[in-house]
Amino acid sequence: MFEVAEIPRKISKQQYREEVPKLREKLLFAQLAVKDERKRAVVIVVSGLDGAGKGETVNLINEWLDPRYLRTRSMRTPTDEELARPRMYRFWRALPPKGRSAVFFGSWYSKPMADRIAGRITDTEYDQALQRIRRFEKMLVDEGVVLLKLWFHLSKKQQKKRLKELEKDKKTRWRVSKKDWQGYESRDAFLAIAARTVRETSRENAMWELVPGYEPRFRNLTVGKHVLHALEHAQQDQVKPVVHVEDTRPVDGRLVLSHVDLSKKLEKKQYRKKLAKAQARLNELSRDRAFRKRAAVAVFEGWDAAGKGGAIRRVTRALDARQYQVIPIAAPTEEERAQPYLWRFWRHLPSHAHFTIFDRSWYGRVLVERVEGFSPAWDWTRAYAEINDFEETLIDRGIIVAKFWLQIDAEEQLRRFEERKRVAFKRHKITEEDWRNRDKWDEYELAVHDMIERTSTEIAPWTIVSANDKRHARVTVVETMADVMEAALRS
Amino acid sequence: MFEVAEIPRKISKQQYREEVPKLREKLLFAQLAVKDERKRAVVIVVSGLDGAGKGETVNLINEWLDPRYLRTRSMRTPTDEELARPRMYRFWRALPPKGRSAVFFGSWYSKPMADRIAGRITDTEYDQALQRIRRFEKMLVDEGVVLLKLWFHLSKKQQKKRLKELEKDKKTRWRVSKKDWQGYESRDAFLAIAARTVRETSRENAMWELVPGYEPRFRNLTVGKHVLHALEHAQQDQVKPVVHVEDTRPVDGRLVLSHVDLSKKLEKKQYRKKLAKAQARLNELSRDRAFRKRAAVAVFEGWDAAGKGGAIRRVTRALDARQYQVIPIAAPTEEERAQPYLWRFWRHLPSHAHFTIFDRSWYGRVLVERVEGFSPAWDWTRAYAEINDFEETLIDRGIIVAKFWLQIDAEEQLRRFEERKRVAFKRHKITEEDWRNRDKWDEYELAVHDMIERTSTEIAPWTIVSANDKRHARVTVVETMADVMEAALRS
Repeated sequence: MFEVAEIPRKISKQQYREEVPKLREKLLFAQLAVKDERKRAVVIVVSGLDGAGKGETVNLINEWLDPRYLRTRSMRTPTDEELARPRMYRFWRALPPKGRSAVFFGSWYSKPMADRIAGRITDTEYDQALQRIRRFEKMLVDEGVVLLKLWFHLSKKQQKKRLKELEKDKKTRWRVSKKDWQGYESRDAFLAIAARTVRETSRENAMWELVPGYEPRFRNLTVGKHVLHALEHAQQDQVKPVVHVEDTRPVDGRLVLSHVDLSKKLEKKQYRKKLAKAQARLNELSRDRAFRKRAAVAVFEGWDAAGKGGAIRRVTRALDARQYQVIPIAAPTEEERAQPYLWRFWRHLPSHAHFTIFDRSWYGRVLVERVEGFSPAWDWTRAYAEINDFEETLIDRGIIVAKFWLQIDAEEQLRRFEERKRVAFKRHKITEEDWRNRDKWDEYELAVHDMIERTSTEIAPWTIVSANDKRHARVTVVETMADVMEAALRS
Repeated sequence: MFEVAEIPRKISKQQYREEVPKLREKLLFAQLAVKDERKRAVVIVVSGLDGAGKGETVNLINEWLDPRYLRTRSMRTPTDEELARPRMYRFWRALPPKGRSAVFFGSWYSKPMADRIAGRITDTEYDQALQRIRRFEKMLVDEGVVLLKLWFHLSKKQQKKRLKELEKDKKTRWRVSKKDWQGYESRDAFLAIAARTVRETSRENAMWELVPGYEPRFRNLTVGKHVLHALEHAQQDQVKPVVHVEDTRPVDGRLVLSHVDLSKKLEKKQYRKKLAKAQARLNELSRDRAFRKRAAVAVFEGWDAAGKGGAIRRVTRALDARQYQVIPIAAPTEEERAQPYLWRFWRHLPSHAHFTIFDRSWYGRVLVERVEGFSPAWDWTRAYAEINDFEETLIDRGIIVAKFWLQIDAEEQLRRFEERKRVAFKRHKITEEDWRNRDKWDEYELAVHDMIERTSTEIAPWTIVSANDKRHARVTVVETMADVMEAALRS
């Protein structure tokens, strides 16, 4: 695989001098078109052997492009805010918005590779890591990000020569560390893992491009050509595959929600007692020692007027106000629209010992966006897997996930809508949209059915709450929240 | 001052039971109106004696309001990302957007007060800290934020009783620490500083409201009343004072820019030599040990086509790409528009050993916003002081600040516009707006004159760069950048 990059290459000074100005003009032109059109973002990953010109290349890209529309992301030591969240958090927050580019120097590859080389993870664990990377990159590409991955390589002789040259020059000496020489010594082991990495993560629209690192002129022109191609790609509209959506209604026509027993009820006295008890239990768990290095995410979905807000307030009252945030999900902001879909949820993930409660959530993609046609089938069908991957990422990091669907029937909803019209301070709660959504009850019911079937996983199951009776619903929510916490903290 | 809060108070159970439901309905109603109208943000600061019910109150506000539109900001230990930036950074990033509220439990008062009590800062230094706080709060209020500051107080007897009660109850025992008892012991010293703090920082629209903390019902109703008032206030349009703007043209009619010698020039050979030398010096300084705990901010302003982009690129080429970011300032995003003006610049402040280069900057307020009438005089006239305060904040924290005005004359600008029209890949650079701005040359010239007069301070002076000749301009910029760095690092 790397042999091709070891072939001696040479570009004459004259050729270089002729080509560079033309290339730079094209690069600038392309970059500004990307910026003006704001269709897609460009992510450039720089990886490979030490001494193969990675640092020079990052500086070169910065020199050739307009630095105003380019960010360089140096991914060295994570900050404590990053350490308290899932590993990919720092990459998500560093993603460029549509119309901009970012160079990642150090990337999601760095830590798994280093861990594997040092033997801190097994071969199988490394495979898992690569699989997670593939999923992440597929998601980026599917969301329209243009991904350019540059792998820098040198022959053994070239590498040694390069490191010595750098060491000799007073100005570059600081760049060669003991670690680089150690890297050189363990070159073969590194290359074995590298080859596997490059092979396993070269996928459509996420190919590694090999860059021979020894001869600067050849290297620079090669990089420039790839970057230009990426910038030209980013001016194109993303063509989304057409997905033929099957009618997933079961052959007996009964969807999962029709199986919910909506007759469940609680008397006032019982309600008070049970609620107080569940809240006390939840409060205790929130202050548990074991929770100090964990965190929790709760998702609330349900029909309009199903009582999400009231249920959420019963949960938050059991918690210390400094410990939680409630994030209502409505239309995304401009900054959110310029990013991959899940970005707006990543930014609110809780730190250690904290709760984030989402009032509506990433499931909007497979509910409202599907039913109202805001997203083409290509986007919402792939969302099931992306969401499962996302929740796995959370759970892997020790974040406790609870998901609630609050179920009421159409009659109860109508009753509540009418009540809201009557009560002054609830009137704001009912909008035209609510009535419109009501007309699409059947379509929503099918969407919920599919959502539960595809995302009620063994690691993050849905709790369907019988919510025609608010008291029953609230107690169920707080009790389940406590149960989920307890199971996670005691395991 | 605190005596009033020591008067024994009591609200009967019955009165409480009658008033609370009405109050809560009003609170919710008001909060939702604030949310829907999105005119202003509400910031609630909670401070005062330990044991006086601060924690209970924060929870109460969360219970009475809809937690979806309220954030609780617990300002305890700063994260390392916060520690690497000016002290107010963490408060800026925690500000609620328009339409939302935030409770600050622990605030910009906490650290200065603690430092003064522990004797880590002198009395005079504490005065400085209070002055900075007053400026910050004035800025918030001037920007339309509704600020509610609650000060919780107890008599000595009440405080002792309260702490003992909390200690006795198994459920609340964890909340009483040794520190609380130490606080109780040094109560008098604390109160002396507290009284001074409350007095000196109670200013129009930023008054401290005293809350007697002992009797919960009285306390809760008092807090509820203040919060309701704040939420009602936040529904009002901000009425901005009318400012009568004086013609600041000097009596001889010659503005500062007319004194710039635009004939300065550099020959190509000299340019190359000088530029390389200045860049080498800048590069060395950027890797200086002394810079590791510092940071730098460079601001580029100037006429359209004055060569800001080219000058910036000559600076960035001297730096490692991992060390800088260039932030082009154009129209603010939706999230930025929902915040005080300077928020969009705070978010890009550099961490240790990093550079942030602003291509246009906070000076837009007193340039384009003034001339084009985007801001009323009330906003841009107060901006001079706010900007000076902001830059002082940066410098206090060891951030090196360099500000460049690139000066060309109208003929040179015309020549460059025409050239841009001719050269294909520069064509995007010229817009209708550029021609329009050109028509207002005189007005801009006056705005620049005022800007330099009012913001070229001894701590952050402007460098006016003679830029009719690009080579001269670029060398001047890089040399000045190196000079400013050197002066700061060697002092």
